[in-house]
Amino acid sequence: MYDQLRFDYLSCAGHPHLETPNFDRVAARGVRFTNAYVQSPVCGASRMSFYTGRYVSSHGAQWNGFPLRVGEHTLGDHLRKAGMDCWLIGKTHMKVDAEGMARLGLAPDSVIGARQAECGFDVWIRDDGLWGEGPDGFYDEKRSPYNEYLKSRGYEGQNPWADFANAGIDAGEKASGWMFDNADKPANIREEDSETPWLTSRTIEFIDQAKAPWCAHVSYIKPHWPYIVPAPYHEMYGPNHVPAAMRSEKEREDPHPVYGAFMGNKIAAAFQNDEVRRKVIPAYMGLIKQCDDQLGRLLDYLEETGRLDDTMIVLTSDHGDYLGDHWLGEKDLFHEPSVKIPMIICDPRPEADATRGTVCDALVESIDLAPTFVEAAGGTIPDHILEGRSLSPWLRGETPDWREIVISEYDYSVTPMRASLGVSSRDARLFMVFDGRYKLIHAEGGFRPMLFDLATDPDEFDDLARWDTHGAEIERLYQHLARWGRRMAQRVTRSEADIEAMRGRSARRGILPFLKDGSEVPEELTQAYRGPVGQDHTASSGKEGA
Amino acid sequence: MYDQLRFDYLSCAGHPHLETPNFDRVAARGVRFTNAYVQSPVCGASRMSFYTGRYVSSHGAQWNGFPLRVGEHTLGDHLRKAGMDCWLIGKTHMKVDAEGMARLGLAPDSVIGARQAECGFDVWIRDDGLWGEGPDGFYDEKRSPYNEYLKSRGYEGQNPWADFANAGIDAGEKASGWMFDNADKPANIREEDSETPWLTSRTIEFIDQAKAPWCAHVSYIKPHWPYIVPAPYHEMYGPNHVPAAMRSEKEREDPHPVYGAFMGNKIAAAFQNDEVRRKVIPAYMGLIKQCDDQLGRLLDYLEETGRLDDTMIVLTSDHGDYLGDHWLGEKDLFHEPSVKIPMIICDPRPEADATRGTVCDALVESIDLAPTFVEAAGGTIPDHILEGRSLSPWLRGETPDWREIVISEYDYSVTPMRASLGVSSRDARLFMVFDGRYKLIHAEGGFRPMLFDLATDPDEFDDLARWDTHGAEIERLYQHLARWGRRMAQRVTRSEADIEAMRGRSARRGILPFLKDGSEVPEELTQAYRGPVGQDHTASSGKEGA
Repeated sequence: MYDQLRFDYLSCAGHPHLETPNFDRVAARGVRFTNAYVQSPVCGASRMSFYTGRYVSSHGAQWNGFPLRVGEHTLGDHLRKAGMDCWLIGKTHMKVDAEGMARLGLAPDSVIGARQAECGFDVWIRDDGLWGEGPDGFYDEKRSPYNEYLKSRGYEGQNPWADFANAGIDAGEKASGWMFDNADKPANIREEDSETPWLTSRTIEFIDQAKAPWCAHVSYIKPHWPYIVPAPYHEMYGPNHVPAAMRSEKEREDPHPVYGAFMGNKIAAAFQNDEVRRKVIPAYMGLIKQCDDQLGRLLDYLEETGRLDDTMIVLTSDHGDYLGDHWLGEKDLFHEPSVKIPMIICDPRPEADATRGTVCDALVESIDLAPTFVEAAGGTIPDHILEGRSLSPWLRGETPDWREIVISEYDYSVTPMRASLGVSSRDARLFMVFDGRYKLIHAEGGFRPMLFDLATDPDEFDDLARWDTHGAEIERLYQHLARWGRRMAQRVTRSEADIEAMRGRSARRGILPFLKDGSEVPEELTQAYRGPVGQDHTASSGKEGA
Repeated sequence: MYDQLRFDYLSCAGHPHLETPNFDRVAARGVRFTNAYVQSPVCGASRMSFYTGRYVSSHGAQWNGFPLRVGEHTLGDHLRKAGMDCWLIGKTHMKVDAEGMARLGLAPDSVIGARQAECGFDVWIRDDGLWGEGPDGFYDEKRSPYNEYLKSRGYEGQNPWADFANAGIDAGEKASGWMFDNADKPANIREEDSETPWLTSRTIEFIDQAKAPWCAHVSYIKPHWPYIVPAPYHEMYGPNHVPAAMRSEKEREDPHPVYGAFMGNKIAAAFQNDEVRRKVIPAYMGLIKQCDDQLGRLLDYLEETGRLDDTMIVLTSDHGDYLGDHWLGEKDLFHEPSVKIPMIICDPRPEADATRGTVCDALVESIDLAPTFVEAAGGTIPDHILEGRSLSPWLRGETPDWREIVISEYDYSVTPMRASLGVSSRDARLFMVFDGRYKLIHAEGGFRPMLFDLATDPDEFDDLARWDTHGAEIERLYQHLARWGRRMAQRVTRSEADIEAMRGRSARRGILPFLKDGSEVPEELTQAYRGPVGQDHTASSGKEGA
């Protein structure tokens, strides 16, 4: 997983300037999913959906720093049940539910407690990056193995992450990596010591000692900001490689209030400035190029050790980056550059030979990976817990019955945008429903919806919900949203098999299924409920249309 | 709490024959809520909503024997935080999430584990009743303190619950209490040893030693079936006290398929027989009369010890009993006899003096009790977890802004009715939306809805959704259901106060609220995101109509 990697910043996805031969190499051996979406276009919530296989409203960790509640089932739980380890190498953005841990008496340093604290992973190495000021500010709030590494390599100071890896060097002077103006400077670090190569080395170390079967979440911090990259990547791309921003004056004329509020924030304002784009985007491309080179290093290692033939590889991201498109920066909303992600899956098994090098345009959700992995591990997919669907049929070239819509959510309750919109914390929530053509965005709090038709308006400039021309489409997508809202998300303590067993027992006995948790019912009771006269009405059946 | 006590089987609720002076005595000192509904008309799911203050789809324990997942917050958690103990005396129908306990390493015999296993209660005494065959069948699956008591009182055999307390005596011969034909026989037990007096004695023992502040869930098994009651209660009422069944041939003409399936089950078939009703209903009334007498005993005890003046008393039930109305028996569906419950609250505080002896017709849900109790305990209502609303304003005579609808749910996935309807486990779910006049019932699985207008059809005989006359009402209630489906139910690890604090910090800094879980953002970053040119767009604001 790469953090904040746009779906279209890969050469296999058609980028006109950026060559990513190693991403393409995996795509050539696997399937590239061209309609893959995250469950929320913000790091924390999106990742918790990847790691639980559940929608954001189901797991409840709706934003960065909102803890995943203790006891929530994770990919690690499911994989370990199937006999596969589940390791973390890099970033998760997991925030521990400390209150819940204390309430249940779970010690953070116990195996169980540590897994709860780390979202179900066993930690090979965790580093979330973004180490700001220290030691009184952010840095040292958690330990940064990467910062320790930098110190061991002779980078001095309290926070070499900030002073070297994420600072520029300009005529011998340190130039803050936070400043967009410095995005064209080389990072103040030897390339081999920067974050991406460092994590790749840790990954190789892990694989070197790992005993199969294992699952490893190799989770790079880049190309997430700060937008600064070491030489020679800082000068591989320049303003001539920066496309015009995909934005329209029409979008600013009468924007939906929520969209308007996000357009007005300072991140957006910065990216509305083309000087910023001309400096930042080449750095972003350089960061991706470095990721691609390191991916090549990893692929070579796998190939040399024979592991390429028995290792499933999935390349994806937790969300995209607006980069100034739609007058916005970063992520947060539901335009394609933000909510759509790259997803390339190479399954080495012979069953997947037929699809190598193909693309698949099925509507994929990030929560589909967890069941895909459980299936690959030989486990039974706990579909009373996991809300995604295994992608294996697509990898085998089948065309299964599939979902009609994807859902994504965004909770902006802690952002400044809520204040400017004047909505309650509970109403500061957005829902996207996308059927592959029409994209509806519902905003709680009494706002009108937004609607885009990607068939006639692939750039998503024209919010059709401003007019009364598309009532039927809006209604149809709202029906989908309502059905999704009634989904069975929390019946997690009874599997489908449990339910079949309980139902079977009650059906054999004919009555009193409610007695004693579905245990066998003695004949005495069966008699009782036949009543003295022994009437026996036949159940009516057959469905009517909705 | 009484189990399966119909809202209208109390004299204060207008029953024509049953005198319940002690229920009435509490009603005269408090408020009787005339529109109180359970979150699910089945024991287990309904109780888990009472005990968590959350909708069934939120806590996930959707039927009897579906474990409440480990870590779910309970009333006990909230009350203990407010400095109040929370004790169980009687029945809960709680099923432990053994898999979750094992996964988190919680020992059932630890304080934390025991509370998890008992739905947040400290157990003074637990007895769920319904002890069937033993020891190879149900009985002894769990310990029954009541059965132990019976043995200590000289009632012999493996399962004196079945042989004495819930068997009849007929000319010296034991007569099974499971057989409706025996409902007019006296129970084979001394009245003072039967379940209701026994639990009352245990309650008095508890109160006698308890140190304030405490909350006690005094949870009677009766008047739940088996319908058999000791002398003299067995002969207090007779066939002349049995009202005609509230049912109409119209209901059987073209029933909704789900309703039709339930009408066809054997419990329903038994209750469709008037011989059954003429024997069972007098026994049910006798059981209630015994409950009332024992309530009198408890009230007298409280009065004598001065506790009546500082004890809040709430009388309610987990659901009703069809008793043959609507061609049905027991509970399970959403007609008033099943889904509506008695709810009488006596708050001894002077603020509630103005409402004593009054009735309140506000739309009340069973989940409102948990926040009512937390408020009474002096705690802060955790409204990011509790989905109900405190009833205190009504008790003080205020008229707060209030909900427009009540929701109730029913999961019939393990019942025989699912097979006859041919729906999947996931689709075997019903939702009721009631606005005080119109009652919509939505059935998953492609069925049409049901609709009743209680203003023109208080008996709920006429399913208006069969015609196309009420499309607007159906649409309006579906909108309510959709909004409820999008409710924020799982964001339980961040309180409103947490969110205000996070938002406040990000707003003061103006930007980058996503950094480091809402921690302070250094000025350096603030500068960076202003961008080199320092543009500052003002957020648009103002709402538009939906």
